[in-house]
Amino acid sequence: MAGSRMKLELSQVVQGRGRLGLLQGIGRMGQHTLDIPGCLLYTHLGSVPHLTQDALHTLRSLPAVTQVTLSNMAEHQEVLEEFKGGFKKFAGLHDTVLYCSLHDPAAPCPTGHTTNKTVSVWGSGGRIELKVDKFMALQKTVQPDWYQSMADGETWQTSTSRKRVRKSVDRTLAHLDECLTVHQKSQELDGVGVFGVVEGGDILEERVRSARETAKRPVAGFCLDGFQTGAMDQALRSQLITAVTKELPEDKPRLLQGVGRPDEVLACVEAGVDLFEGFLPFQTTERGCALCFSFDVPLDPESAGTATLTVPDEEQHTARETQPNRDLNWDDQTHTTRFEMNLKDKRFQDDFRPLVEGCGCYCCRNHQRAYVHHLLVTNELLAGVLLMIHNTSHYHSFFKAIREALANKKMDLLRRRVLGNGKE
Amino acid sequence: MAGSRMKLELSQVVQGRGRLGLLQGIGRMGQHTLDIPGCLLYTHLGSVPHLTQDALHTLRSLPAVTQVTLSNMAEHQEVLEEFKGGFKKFAGLHDTVLYCSLHDPAAPCPTGHTTNKTVSVWGSGGRIELKVDKFMALQKTVQPDWYQSMADGETWQTSTSRKRVRKSVDRTLAHLDECLTVHQKSQELDGVGVFGVVEGGDILEERVRSARETAKRPVAGFCLDGFQTGAMDQALRSQLITAVTKELPEDKPRLLQGVGRPDEVLACVEAGVDLFEGFLPFQTTERGCALCFSFDVPLDPESAGTATLTVPDEEQHTARETQPNRDLNWDDQTHTTRFEMNLKDKRFQDDFRPLVEGCGCYCCRNHQRAYVHHLLVTNELLAGVLLMIHNTSHYHSFFKAIREALANKKMDLLRRRVLGNGKE
Repeated sequence: MAGSRMKLELSQVVQGRGRLGLLQGIGRMGQHTLDIPGCLLYTHLGSVPHLTQDALHTLRSLPAVTQVTLSNMAEHQEVLEEFKGGFKKFAGLHDTVLYCSLHDPAAPCPTGHTTNKTVSVWGSGGRIELKVDKFMALQKTVQPDWYQSMADGETWQTSTSRKRVRKSVDRTLAHLDECLTVHQKSQELDGVGVFGVVEGGDILEERVRSARETAKRPVAGFCLDGFQTGAMDQALRSQLITAVTKELPEDKPRLLQGVGRPDEVLACVEAGVDLFEGFLPFQTTERGCALCFSFDVPLDPESAGTATLTVPDEEQHTARETQPNRDLNWDDQTHTTRFEMNLKDKRFQDDFRPLVEGCGCYCCRNHQRAYVHHLLVTNELLAGVLLMIHNTSHYHSFFKAIREALANKKMDLLRRRVLGNGKE
Repeated sequence: MAGSRMKLELSQVVQGRGRLGLLQGIGRMGQHTLDIPGCLLYTHLGSVPHLTQDALHTLRSLPAVTQVTLSNMAEHQEVLEEFKGGFKKFAGLHDTVLYCSLHDPAAPCPTGHTTNKTVSVWGSGGRIELKVDKFMALQKTVQPDWYQSMADGETWQTSTSRKRVRKSVDRTLAHLDECLTVHQKSQELDGVGVFGVVEGGDILEERVRSARETAKRPVAGFCLDGFQTGAMDQALRSQLITAVTKELPEDKPRLLQGVGRPDEVLACVEAGVDLFEGFLPFQTTERGCALCFSFDVPLDPESAGTATLTVPDEEQHTARETQPNRDLNWDDQTHTTRFEMNLKDKRFQDDFRPLVEGCGCYCCRNHQRAYVHHLLVTNELLAGVLLMIHNTSHYHSFFKAIREALANKKMDLLRRRVLGNGKE
């Protein structure tokens, strides 16, 4: 099996409450581990936007897996081939597991270009069409530790027909088989893990078929595609993901693509997702916002306020799921959410508090909201640097809080904290 | 005298070869020192563009004096007044001497707005007109250690009439007297140094008069205004500056405004300038370039090649000063110079060397030209961060090299190194 040194050790699985565990032996040398539920480190060309590796490593709770996007790699294939040492070395990345995804989760991906033999990716120079031989040649050049297989993910729009959805599942399985055939013949890719892609749009039977068939292949893990924010509401997403994850082997990680909002992350963890893409801090930073939702859950239940603790679980779920859903298109991904504050807002101009009280990141330890506001309104480049430090720190700490809440059976408390304090 | 704890100790003055020394007792507490010739740290709103304080402090050879611009301060006066603690605290600056200049040396400054009673500064929201009371109220709010007095600097265009130049000298002296009157009555400004401004355009007699009159006032140092790159050629600049500095007391620093190019810096050091504004690394970074001129001068003259050492000084000067001068307008300040390489150029796409071989900065230790090129062509924000680190490091190391060359009587060698290796 591709990526055979990898081992997922689950310390806790409660149906409908999420999986807690440790991915061991990851990376081609098998020297890394990754806690689940977890989040990959989102990068452009191997760098977290705005940040040097030095600045990045002042943050705690950083994941061991870095995500890069194939489109960027495809644009630079010639240079990478000449360089030879692989992308990690080219980008000055050390001591990380490299995961190469097909698309950038923070950029819209035009549809209508996948064929039986090709997928298309979009770089800064436009569309690049990849057949399996070029796709696999790229992987050999990039030398990632994990990569997402070729897939037909163009079925996330609600108007997609059942026939088109079925075709996407078939095509994605055919793409996977082609990739695996080349992969297994390539010595250069020995120890590299292939992630099979589960498609099926919003059709339950197709989702189950896609999961079941993909699970038969020698993959290292699974990408759950077509669930991105804007594609469907959370109730349907939870239902489909729950059905999908039931079909997948317990010992392989499930990576959900395109979902980053804290409330959606919590619901998807409960539906059985292990890994997320970490693009939210970047999107938040680009709109001049700071993540500010709470996720601190007291370890002692006594101090948490008894009133909230007595709310039955059922009621909680209903309350959450009947909220008006305003997230049915891509545009919403780029809107300010209730989990963040917009520091361009005039009310912050004389607010001398840190972005988030008690936050230990470099930005919050050294600067005030008023200063970041002034950097933003005068278009100073440091604004993005400071916000990216805070947002990255905040978001990855949130994932740590999820794991602690799972370990301590406090997911309900965590959800109330995340939802409640985010409200304005 | 304003800023009276300050003391300039000259270790070496050779006429026509520059002053080498140490400014002691600077800062309101008198705890800082600054080597001269030296360069101030250029900032926007107290931050070096792109860089956190953390990233900045990975650099060696950083100066003890940080420059901010009054226009930025004026825009934020209300907030700063409410904050009370002064700008250093507001911006999270610790342990630095703050110098507040009237204008931003890296931004063009429209003319036609100075009057007998006011100066105008340009912020992101447009023009702000300042009378002496508002100007001084701002200084009390900002709480710098040094500040540039109000001045009429609108005489740098070659078309300026003699009458207008004379008026600017008179007006600038009147502004200075008004500022000093308020300053001396303000307990809040006790220990703060005022820099008087020497004007006079390209008219020798007016330059001498301006210098002589300013020197009679109780100022802490002198700003030499109207010499910026584009305003005049280096031969005339050197001649005027030499005449001006002869009129100034030996024990007070002379800060030259708007000159940053390495060849011009060297010539102005020889004309008697002590301090420069450090805006060049920022301008270079903004155009996607890396400073790459050489300034390493072997300490052992034997290893420097005897042929070049025998060139008489006179010949050197002639060769330099008869170079065609292409720098007679502001636009040239934003053009690529021969002291830098444009990393957007396609020839760097597979150049796997560091920006500058042997450079010890974070960027050069960790990344290659090809990677920075790829960051630039894909508009990645890290490109600016990495270039700013390198350019800041390179530029301030150049000033260290100037001091070493002065100490070791190697200015000719240094000039040949800077000019020679910069050529392509």
